[in-house]
Amino acid sequence: MATMNGTTVNGTVSLPATTQQDPPVQRLAEEPLDLAGIAARRAKAGKLIAGTAANSDSDMFKSPHAFNQPKAKRWDHLLTDDAISRQPCALKLAARFLKKPGMLSLGGGLPSSDNFPIESISMQVPQAPLFDKASTDIPESIVTVGKHDIRDKDGVFDLAVGLNYGQSIGSAQMLRWVTEHTELVSRPPYADWRCAMSIGSTGALDSALRIFCDRNRRDSVLTEEYSFSTALETIHPLGIKVVGVRVDEQGLLPDSLDETLSSWDETARGARKPTVLYTVPSGQNPTGATMGAQRRQDVYNVCRKHDLFIFEDEPYYYLQMPPYDKANSLAQPGAVDTSLNQDPEDFLKTLIPTMLSIDVDGRVLRMDSFSKVMIPGSRMGWITASEQVIERYIRLQECVAQGPSGLSQVLLYKILDETWGHEGYLRWLIHMRSEYTRRRDALLDACEKHLPKDVVSWTPPGAGMFHWLHVDHTRHPHAGKKTILEIEEEIFNSCVERGVLACRGSWFSVERDVEPTSLFFRTTFAAASQADMDVAVQRLGEAIRASFENLERASI
Amino acid sequence: MATMNGTTVNGTVSLPATTQQDPPVQRLAEEPLDLAGIAARRAKAGKLIAGTAANSDSDMFKSPHAFNQPKAKRWDHLLTDDAISRQPCALKLAARFLKKPGMLSLGGGLPSSDNFPIESISMQVPQAPLFDKASTDIPESIVTVGKHDIRDKDGVFDLAVGLNYGQSIGSAQMLRWVTEHTELVSRPPYADWRCAMSIGSTGALDSALRIFCDRNRRDSVLTEEYSFSTALETIHPLGIKVVGVRVDEQGLLPDSLDETLSSWDETARGARKPTVLYTVPSGQNPTGATMGAQRRQDVYNVCRKHDLFIFEDEPYYYLQMPPYDKANSLAQPGAVDTSLNQDPEDFLKTLIPTMLSIDVDGRVLRMDSFSKVMIPGSRMGWITASEQVIERYIRLQECVAQGPSGLSQVLLYKILDETWGHEGYLRWLIHMRSEYTRRRDALLDACEKHLPKDVVSWTPPGAGMFHWLHVDHTRHPHAGKKTILEIEEEIFNSCVERGVLACRGSWFSVERDVEPTSLFFRTTFAAASQADMDVAVQRLGEAIRASFENLERASI
Repeated sequence: MATMNGTTVNGTVSLPATTQQDPPVQRLAEEPLDLAGIAARRAKAGKLIAGTAANSDSDMFKSPHAFNQPKAKRWDHLLTDDAISRQPCALKLAARFLKKPGMLSLGGGLPSSDNFPIESISMQVPQAPLFDKASTDIPESIVTVGKHDIRDKDGVFDLAVGLNYGQSIGSAQMLRWVTEHTELVSRPPYADWRCAMSIGSTGALDSALRIFCDRNRRDSVLTEEYSFSTALETIHPLGIKVVGVRVDEQGLLPDSLDETLSSWDETARGARKPTVLYTVPSGQNPTGATMGAQRRQDVYNVCRKHDLFIFEDEPYYYLQMPPYDKANSLAQPGAVDTSLNQDPEDFLKTLIPTMLSIDVDGRVLRMDSFSKVMIPGSRMGWITASEQVIERYIRLQECVAQGPSGLSQVLLYKILDETWGHEGYLRWLIHMRSEYTRRRDALLDACEKHLPKDVVSWTPPGAGMFHWLHVDHTRHPHAGKKTILEIEEEIFNSCVERGVLACRGSWFSVERDVEPTSLFFRTTFAAASQADMDVAVQRLGEAIRASFENLERASI
Repeated sequence: MATMNGTTVNGTVSLPATTQQDPPVQRLAEEPLDLAGIAARRAKAGKLIAGTAANSDSDMFKSPHAFNQPKAKRWDHLLTDDAISRQPCALKLAARFLKKPGMLSLGGGLPSSDNFPIESISMQVPQAPLFDKASTDIPESIVTVGKHDIRDKDGVFDLAVGLNYGQSIGSAQMLRWVTEHTELVSRPPYADWRCAMSIGSTGALDSALRIFCDRNRRDSVLTEEYSFSTALETIHPLGIKVVGVRVDEQGLLPDSLDETLSSWDETARGARKPTVLYTVPSGQNPTGATMGAQRRQDVYNVCRKHDLFIFEDEPYYYLQMPPYDKANSLAQPGAVDTSLNQDPEDFLKTLIPTMLSIDVDGRVLRMDSFSKVMIPGSRMGWITASEQVIERYIRLQECVAQGPSGLSQVLLYKILDETWGHEGYLRWLIHMRSEYTRRRDALLDACEKHLPKDVVSWTPPGAGMFHWLHVDHTRHPHAGKKTILEIEEEIFNSCVERGVLACRGSWFSVERDVEPTSLFFRTTFAAASQADMDVAVQRLGEAIRASFENLERASI
């Protein structure tokens, strides 16, 4: 497959990502794209002043380096009529007049903060580096935000602002944090990238689909052949066809992607050639597969070749783990995770580059989430994309969510920015990596111990919270007589009888009308205790053995 | 116009609302639909047990009385293909197996609460009946929720549950509260009404439109001829035509509604005969109009006649105020609002009946909001409709918001349920009514004082936060030469020059392509201080005078 870097696509010259990722040395020295650089930039900018429903965008918080890059491509040819027709809110436009000194407003119906029934909120927050119970017993662990901290305490964010209406892009306070974090992690290689807060990646995906996919154009979407069931349930009712791309243990196969697109037959497929790829590059749900750096570049290059826009859904990105080592499983009694002491900036270097970080065209809409590494119930995450796409997203959000909960925004801001800071948050992610590695190792230890390896096989997951088990249906005594779905159902029911719930692989199958050719179960190490995981996998092993031996064991 | 109560519509016999609103006396005595009845029902039901992502529905919390009524009509003929095609989430269906005792889960990827970085949250909350500063200085004003209150403190809700993923319908804890509150206020006159939490009424409206309106069917929506601009901006991009119904000082004119529907010409209108009415019955934005009880019944009857489904958007419902009395304005220095001592159940009786309360067919989807009376930034409200409609709404929400923020849910629950209770919340609403009456009176006092009554006229608003000013353009020196929009713009610009922002009436015009026949400005008493309102209205009066005298005054 030819690399498209440095070539002319759609009449726009795009330089290779590697060139664009390296800013001039002098500027680097002046303002490095690291933790110290963020601190220096903040010091230079002075205190962030952002009151009720203040306008903001990422350009206010990006490093000057970002602007030395070419702009993103335009995506007008992919936008839906819905997305194109959305106009800025008339009332919000009028708010610009309020900048005039002395202006009094009889305009917007924003309630007075006098009438908000919370005067202050205090939280008990674990502290870096250990984040243990003891760290929540020190005075610094009590984090407080009052109603008028901006007015009375030289604060940056408070309840008067956080509890009122805000902008759909999110509060300036949280937008600064996610913009800085995104630059720290991904350094997008084009000038006009921006972030916007989301109500979580489920909502962000629904919005992205409304912006890019139109049933009346017979639009279609490509994704991994086994995919997140909620994503499929989001896409199908919109009348958008989803087509699966073959995967291996590193996820999407670029050749399969290329082949599917190159040989697309609109009549046979009943849909226009796909214009969007939806992918979960790290710890994919359900397969647990993680694309390596080269794989991401190869997939990106195919997307350039066929002008695919990419929805990069990365809730598990920060749950990248070291390879599983049975002899040194972290689940063993007394095992110590020495990587907990890792330097935060070294941690960043261990992460596989994001699709966003190689996105010279601005063809990626990346979805980040706080759900897997912080608080699922915050219903808050963020997206990153080109200015054009973010602007259309905001127009839509003004009529959908109006941004995430202000309570979530102000409380997470107090933790992420004022309590932990960027460095503390990276330490928290290191801590989360350790927690999930320990959980993963416990599940894999149990699989090694309890599953019949003659019929069950797996690749140890290197990220996320899912473990995908392949069951060799060809060895089943009724292979050929029973369908794969029937055997899958038999094992599932047997699991339920034995007291363990595992997810059937077919629930994640993208093309539901096609008979599956392999048999899988998805398990997770997210929630159960180590002891429960051991018993659960033992039951799963018994259910599989019973099905394959075609007899019920008495020993359950 | 014929009353449709008690007649056969679409083959279903529906009894008049009045009959259905009066449950049998014996049952009333046993379990009254009032505050005491809620307390008795809770005592009988015992402690609410609802852990992580627990399933719940309103039937668990409704009074037995509700089930003695006929069921709602079915709306299959109005649902969109999108709405019909949504299937329950496969993974959520699997969760039902977890009810089996001893079942271990390797299924759903819900993070462990061990990894949520908030151990406890405390809030300072004003207390009934005064809700003043002093009431936040007593020990009872500190409301605390810990991570494991359910496990360790016999609690009903805690952070382990609130910070995790939840159900799209919302938490059982908040759903109980809104169901009880809805029954207290509206007593819907059919059996299978249910509530669901929303992320605010903006998002609820977008979802309702996705369920009922399809551009490919050329669907259309009716609403007040001047309407909430964000609602219009939500409807238009969906390709749905919006048609305005004439209004008077009580809002929608039933005869105009009937006439519009009876004379509908699909070809001339470029749209199918409307199937949905979107209305704000109380303190309508922008006109401030409030429908009286008879008006609501008359509008409802026209909707039955033409089989219109009703979106009842009621953010200002609880901001119903006594009539404006210039001589006894609450904005006068030293004025005392004696109604602050009103009995909470008497307060309920003063409220105009909701459309939901007369909805014998189950054709109303009511949207309630905490934004105007509690915390706009909570991004939380709720909807009430028939079981069929709520079920379709939940299916959609599983792919959009997944319910409101858990932080918002757990914190508002602690205030509404455990701190204030239903009675305390009604006292809070009485307090809010007083706050807004004082604000309204301040604005109206200023209008009486500063506006040229020969050209500006108004109806004092009886609810909400908006005051709609009619400007008699026929008296303008350039009437006939300048269009209404030109005069409106001239006054608006003159206002901005003078340092006051008021909203142009045309921003709220439903049919943008039709030249307006009247000239309006919308003002609000929501936010500005009493002193600022006086100065602002003075400037507005000067701007209008200058335009009508066609000369600039030097005295600004």
